[in-house]
Formats: sequence, structure tokens, C-alpha cells
Amino acid sequence: MKVDGKPYRTIWRHEDGWSVEIIDQTKLPHEFVLAQLTTLEDAAHAIKAMLVRGAPLVGATAAYGMCLAVREDPSDEGIDRAYQVLFATRPTAVNLRWALDVMRDAMRNLPREKRAAAAYAKAAEICDDDVATCSAIGDHGLSLIREAWEKKGRPERVNVLTHCNAGWLATVDWGTALAPIYKAHDAGLPVHVWVDETRPRNQGASLSAWELGRHGVPHTVITDNAGGHIMQHGLVDLCIVGTDRTTGTGDVCNKIGTYLKALAAHDNGVPFYVALPHSTIDWTIDDGVKEIPIEQRDAAEVTEMTGRAADGRIVTVRITPEGSPAANYAFDVTPRKYVTGLITERGVCAASPEGLRGLYPERSGG
Amino acid sequence: MKVDGKPYRTIWRHEDGWSVEIIDQTKLPHEFVLAQLTTLEDAAHAIKAMLVRGAPLVGATAAYGMCLAVREDPSDEGIDRAYQVLFATRPTAVNLRWALDVMRDAMRNLPREKRAAAAYAKAAEICDDDVATCSAIGDHGLSLIREAWEKKGRPERVNVLTHCNAGWLATVDWGTALAPIYKAHDAGLPVHVWVDETRPRNQGASLSAWELGRHGVPHTVITDNAGGHIMQHGLVDLCIVGTDRTTGTGDVCNKIGTYLKALAAHDNGVPFYVALPHSTIDWTIDDGVKEIPIEQRDAAEVTEMTGRAADGRIVTVRITPEGSPAANYAFDVTPRKYVTGLITERGVCAASPEGLRGLYPERSGG
Repeated sequence: MKVDGKPYRTIWRHEDGWSVEIIDQTKLPHEFVLAQLTTLEDAAHAIKAMLVRGAPLVGATAAYGMCLAVREDPSDEGIDRAYQVLFATRPTAVNLRWALDVMRDAMRNLPREKRAAAAYAKAAEICDDDVATCSAIGDHGLSLIREAWEKKGRPERVNVLTHCNAGWLATVDWGTALAPIYKAHDAGLPVHVWVDETRPRNQGASLSAWELGRHGVPHTVITDNAGGHIMQHGLVDLCIVGTDRTTGTGDVCNKIGTYLKALAAHDNGVPFYVALPHSTIDWTIDDGVKEIPIEQRDAAEVTEMTGRAADGRIVTVRITPEGSPAANYAFDVTPRKYVTGLITERGVCAASPEGLRGLYPERSGG
Repeated sequence: MKVDGKPYRTIWRHEDGWSVEIIDQTKLPHEFVLAQLTTLEDAAHAIKAMLVRGAPLVGATAAYGMCLAVREDPSDEGIDRAYQVLFATRPTAVNLRWALDVMRDAMRNLPREKRAAAAYAKAAEICDDDVATCSAIGDHGLSLIREAWEKKGRPERVNVLTHCNAGWLATVDWGTALAPIYKAHDAGLPVHVWVDETRPRNQGASLSAWELGRHGVPHTVITDNAGGHIMQHGLVDLCIVGTDRTTGTGDVCNKIGTYLKALAAHDNGVPFYVALPHSTIDWTIDDGVKEIPIEQRDAAEVTEMTGRAADGRIVTVRITPEGSPAANYAFDVTPRKYVTGLITERGVCAASPEGLRGLYPERSGG
């Protein structure tokens, strides 16, 4: 998407033909800084220190990390080492492992001198595939926004609420939940976005607000507490959120607080959509609430907040009393009964086993 | 309640017999500092600059402000001027006006030399009445916590979730929503409190966490996003929140985000109680969602956050990108169908016209 008029992806090959550039997302929203990756270690650091985040982008960065490694050492031992180094950055990230496997397979049985070129070609393909997937999600979601706008008599604005950051910064381009919004905006629909700040890590207030603003999409940041009130008062036409993991039955595990917004949408007759690439679907799980383990992260994310002080410095401040413990549940599960539909790269379906199997018949088993 | 073992109220007459002491709540949770009020202007400043907050405490502070004024100028003109100065600090605060009227009436027809003594006596009475009201709310709510604990087979802890700060810091002592919790703790029940941080002003993370911690009540701060998840997993036995305004029909207007917690409680079979003194009941309103206007406050409360930096300084940091607008709805309305019961100083009743009229028959009209 665009940053102040200039189109960007979140990762790309530098014009030198071999090194890799990314947006250093740890500096957002206060500074827009690019980082150049020239070694395997650079790529591993970018993932580990969260210069890049979001499953698709982490996968793409790992893919380019393999390229940088193979460029220096194309031996089998070199490839194995690169795989281990990159895998160790986030051992639980499913997409990371998938990307590393794809990269290793792409070099299998090739002579050493052809491995680097094959790797760069495959990394580019991984990126392009992700862009195509997100773009397709955007196209399908655009229809829903257009319908909502037309059904309401084409008002001055159509209001979409989103939670966390499932935008282009979490993918290679377009994003998942925000892809329909960018498509709608670019198609001339008067879309306005309510951006949940998304405590404790504030991905909405920092990342979603930043990327929407830089692309020129009208938006308003609200606290996570406000969504129910604005839905009660007709100020939300539809909700679109992303997901970290979707069960084959349609339950949605996403950033903590998503469930509360789904309840409010249900209570007020507001459609609640979840945008996802098929790679987030976990076909092995039936009951999301019971079966998906929820990670607890560092309590300091709750007790502290980081931002830019008046003097321009980035400062972390403590907001709770000394001695008060905090708990930091990272995700919650929204039961499928509160999900109006799933927006995938193949189209929109009901959040149900039947809905998902209709779009992914190859998964329907025997 | 206690601060590290020593009992406090939020406002009291100094041992000099005439000046007034308060806790400077703007310094919490990072510093526990008392402030001495010696003039009408001191009292007005304390209210306006929010050294004191919470309807009952604002009323009590205004009452003592009248004492300080009359001590210097007991003339009718002096009383009128003090009334105007104090009323102007927060013209929309119903309890402030009520306290000022009570104080003025207490001095009516008295000779000038007797007015100061009458004022101090009435201010003390206002404070003692508030303490008695909150204590009664606490006693009635204690029964609900005890029931929940016994019904569950007296587990190691009984978990109460609360939102915002309806604690002793918002009243003269005990608080409203937290009064049952203090009563339970003091009675030896193993009560543990989930404290919603309550963005944007963080009254939970700063004030509720502070006062519970200082009194020794086990508690854990969570983001406003987390309540749904912990209710899904059986970690909340009941919710108790306060209210700024309750309709005669049982709808509850309270800090933004209360409604989302009520929805989650309803969805998970968790009892959701609202604690209130009768003074918050607005008998003129039937439909809270439609009829109660919701104040929008300064967007800076959303885009900025204040806390203590590593070097000990209190710093305000910006957490959103430059140019991203924010909206700041201060309250929301929880429809009565999501409220299990109202805990008043007269007992617990259903959140319904019949429930409230049963406890307040003098209001049932003809």
C-alpha cells in the first residue's frame, strides 16, 4: 500500500539485486525507517526483535533469510544451519516453518551454484503468492462493504470496526482484515474505520492507525472499551477482524478482546466478519474455546506503556502501582455462532464446518 | 480503608479543628500525598483539578469548601459566593449541587456567629451518611460474594471482576462496587479481584489496583480486552461494577466498556451486579440507551498515556501516529436485561422498575 503517495510492500529485494529491505516496524508509528538485511543473522534478528511481525511477513522474511544464507554458503550444511537459526527465532510460528520447508524443498537436488538463484526465485514467489491471496481476500470483502453501503442508501460514510492489526504491515501487502478496506477506499467507497487501540500492545493505535493514515483512509482511534457503545448507536456498519488460528468448525482465535466485539456486534445486529488466508485454518481442532491453548505474555506489557514524550524521546512508563500483579492473556476465542462469515481468498463462507468444507472441498476428507 | 495498615478516609477535618485534609489523587498510584485545604479556593481547586473525584467525594469536598468559606465570611453574600465558586467547578455534577444545597439550608436563618459551627457539623454528617450508605452496600454485596463462594464449594479463592474505580477513593470510605469486596476480605473470605485497567483514564490500573493493594486485597490487573476470555474459562465468579447514573427502570450508565463486560457475563452465566447509592438513580429516565447523553472527552486521553518513567519522573507519552484522530466516549449504557441485580444501601433488587420500586416505595408514585 502507499506511504504518503509512494507504493510499498513490507519486504522487497534491494535494487542491488541481492540484499533485502524491510520496514522496521519497531519504530512505528513515530518513525518510518527502513532496515537493510544482508546476512542470515540480520534476517533472524529482524524476526526475533519483531522488526517484522505477522505470520505471512515472518514467513517471507525467513524465506529471504534463507536466500542471504545460501548466497554465502550454498552447502547442505549451510542450508541446514540457516533453517535451524531461522526456525529458532519463533519455534511456534506455523507459517515460519512452512516457509522454511518450501525454501529447502526448492533447493533440493540442485547443484550448489544454482541454489541461490532458486532461493531468490522461490522467496519472490512466496511474497507474490501472499500478495495475491490478500488481494483476493480484499476483493471478496469489498463486496460486503459495498453491500452494507448500498443497503443503507449510500450514506456519506460506511463504518467498519477493526481490532488489532491485520493490515498490510502484517503481510507482504494488502493485509487480511484491512484488505477489503483498502480495496473499498481505492474503489471510491467512502469507508471510515474505527480502530480499536488493542491493549496491551496497541497494534491498532500504532500500526493500523499508521498504515490507514499513510494510505489516506479516514479512520478514528478508539479505546477497546468503546466498540459496544458505538454499535448500540448505529455507528458501525460491519466489523472485520483477522485471525491467528481458525478451527475447521469456524471458531476464531484472534487478539484478546475480539470476542467482546463479536458479542457486541451480535447484540446490535452488526455483521461480524473474519478475514483469513486458508493457512490459518487448523483442521484438527473442533472446539476453539476448549482446545486452543492461550499464550500468556509478559505482564510488563500490561503494567507499562511505551510512546513518544514531548521532547521526542521514546519512553516507557509504568501505569500501575508497584506491587500490583498483572495477567496478560494474548488471544481469545470467538465461538462461530458470533461470526457472520469468513472472508477467504476463495470467497466468503459461513463460519461452520459446512461453510469451510464448501470452499475447501479437498479438506472434506472421506 | 487502610493504607499500609493505617485507616483513612478520603477527606477529614485536620487535627487543628478547622482545615481539611484530602488524599491528592492526581499523584496516585505512584505517590501517596496528602493535601491540606485551608480556603474556599483550595477546595474549588481540589475539585476542578481532580485531586478528588467520584460523586460522593466531590460532594463532601464541596461541603467542606463551604465550611472554609463561611469561617472567613459568614455573610449571606459570602455563602452565595462560595456556592457559585464551588458549583462552577463541575456544573453537571448532580451530587455537587445536592451537597451545596444541603449546606446552604443548614445555615439558613442562623445568626452569622453560629453558621460556621453549623456548616462543619453538616459537612461531617454528609460524610458520615456517605460512609453509612457505602457500608450498607458493602454488607448486602458481601452476602452475594459469600453465596458465590459457598455455592462453588468454598474454593481457595472467589473471583470478582470490576471495572473502573468505584472504590473508597471515589467516596468518603468503603466505595460502592468495592465495598462488598472489602467487607468480604475483612470477613476472611478468600476474595481475589480482576481489575480492568479501564482505558482511557486507567482508573482501574491506577486507583482500584492501588487501593486494593494498600488494604491488602489480592488482585490482578488485566486489560479491558481480557474479561471475556477469563469468563469463558470459569475464572470469574461474579462481576461488581459501579454506576454514574441508573434509570428508574434499571439501565446502568457507567464507565465506557462496562456494557462489553456485561455481555460477556451474560454469555457465560456469570452474575453481573451493579452497586449504587440511591442518589445515582434518575427516576425520570426509562430507556438508558436512547435517553442518556454520553459525554465525549478530550481525545488526548486516548492518544496519550501518563506514567512513571524509569528515572522516577511522571511522563506523558503519545501512543498514536501524528494525524490520526481519536474519539473518546466516556460512558456506555448497559441495558437492564444484562444486569443480574442492583446492590443498594437498602438491599439487592432486580434491575427493573418493579425491583427498584420495591426498595424505594416512596418513589413509586400514584
